Amino acid sequence: MRKRNPVAEAIRTRRSIRQFRNAAVSDDTVNEILEAGSWAPSGKNNQPWKFAVIRDADLKGALATMTHYHATVRQASVCIAVFLDTSRSYDRTKDVQAVGACLQNMLLTIHSMGLGGVWLGEILKNKEKVANLLGAGTGLELMAVIAMGRPGEKAMHFLAGEGPVRKRLEDLVFLRK
Amino acid sequence: MRKRNPVAEAIRTRRSIRQFRNAAVSDDTVNEILEAGSWAPSGKNNQPWKFAVIRDADLKGALATMTHYHATVRQASVCIAVFLDTSRSYDRTKDVQAVGACLQNMLLTIHSMGLGGVWLGEILKNKEKVANLLGAGTGLELMAVIAMGRPGEKAMHFLAGEGPVRKRLEDLVFLRK
Repeated sequence: MRKRNPVAEAIRTRRSIRQFRNAAVSDDTVNEILEAGSWAPSGKNNQPWKFAVIRDADLKGALATMTHYHATVRQASVCIAVFLDTSRSYDRTKDVQAVGACLQNMLLTIHSMGLGGVWLGEILKNKEKVANLLGAGTGLELMAVIAMGRPGEKAMHFLAGEGPVRKRLEDLVFLRK
Repeated sequence: MRKRNPVAEAIRTRRSIRQFRNAAVSDDTVNEILEAGSWAPSGKNNQPWKFAVIRDADLKGALATMTHYHATVRQASVCIAVFLDTSRSYDRTKDVQAVGACLQNMLLTIHSMGLGGVWLGEILKNKEKVANLLGAGTGLELMAVIAMGRPGEKAMHFLAGEGPVRKRLEDLVFLRK
């Protein structure tokens, strides 16, 4: 089997980590993750993302009530809420894609640092409540929350495993010409 | 300045490459790029993406007529058209984000291999025509085209540069608590 380069390897071995140990994550580390997000491509380079960084236990506790994954949010050392700045938006589909690229940059960076994170989408059922809780201004629409920290014992199991089943390329590629 | 790990470095040094030299890109390489795309996270792991791989000069020529960036499409060794499979879609916003993460995985992999690529979004103005040209079935909606190949002389200039200006973190983070 061909050896993958470090980038391809990180893409292949990243897992959704939902359980964390109690360990500090520095502001420098968080900034490096946010910067990686900010280097995602966007249409017309409009960079339509905004971030809220949550560490405070009470605020995390309030955020936790808004998702089925409350234990993950409470355990996370840091949560990063990612918003679409609709005032910067020029095309909904392209801007939402760009936010997806931004999220993936952050998740890959988290993984590459030996940390773990998970992309929480289910919390969008309460996106207005989350925006209010975090004091997001007019026009900011919640896109996802990343919960992150040092992977806990149970999470190490997922990191060692094969990961969720993926469709085969034959089933994904409908034309080669 | 802190040294970045290879993943963070690839994220920071990736550029949109729009000019290519005439050089073959193997099927194995293309498959590795597509597989990296397929390892993007998606809500409920629904993997809502489909791909078309275009190498044929006549087909590339026809595709080129559908975008302002016709020279880029013609020069590219390979174009990968990425579609949303709306029959797999469960939430438009989350699915479009997932496709964005899939595209970013592919662009980072292309860059990490010493190749270059560009995310073409402007071609969506002709998304139905592109879908017809490529014989995309019902329910497949064009999300983007990646044009890729070995970077040309002019493109090396961009790879060496700082890249498009990014907003500062102070302007992106509206809450730290």
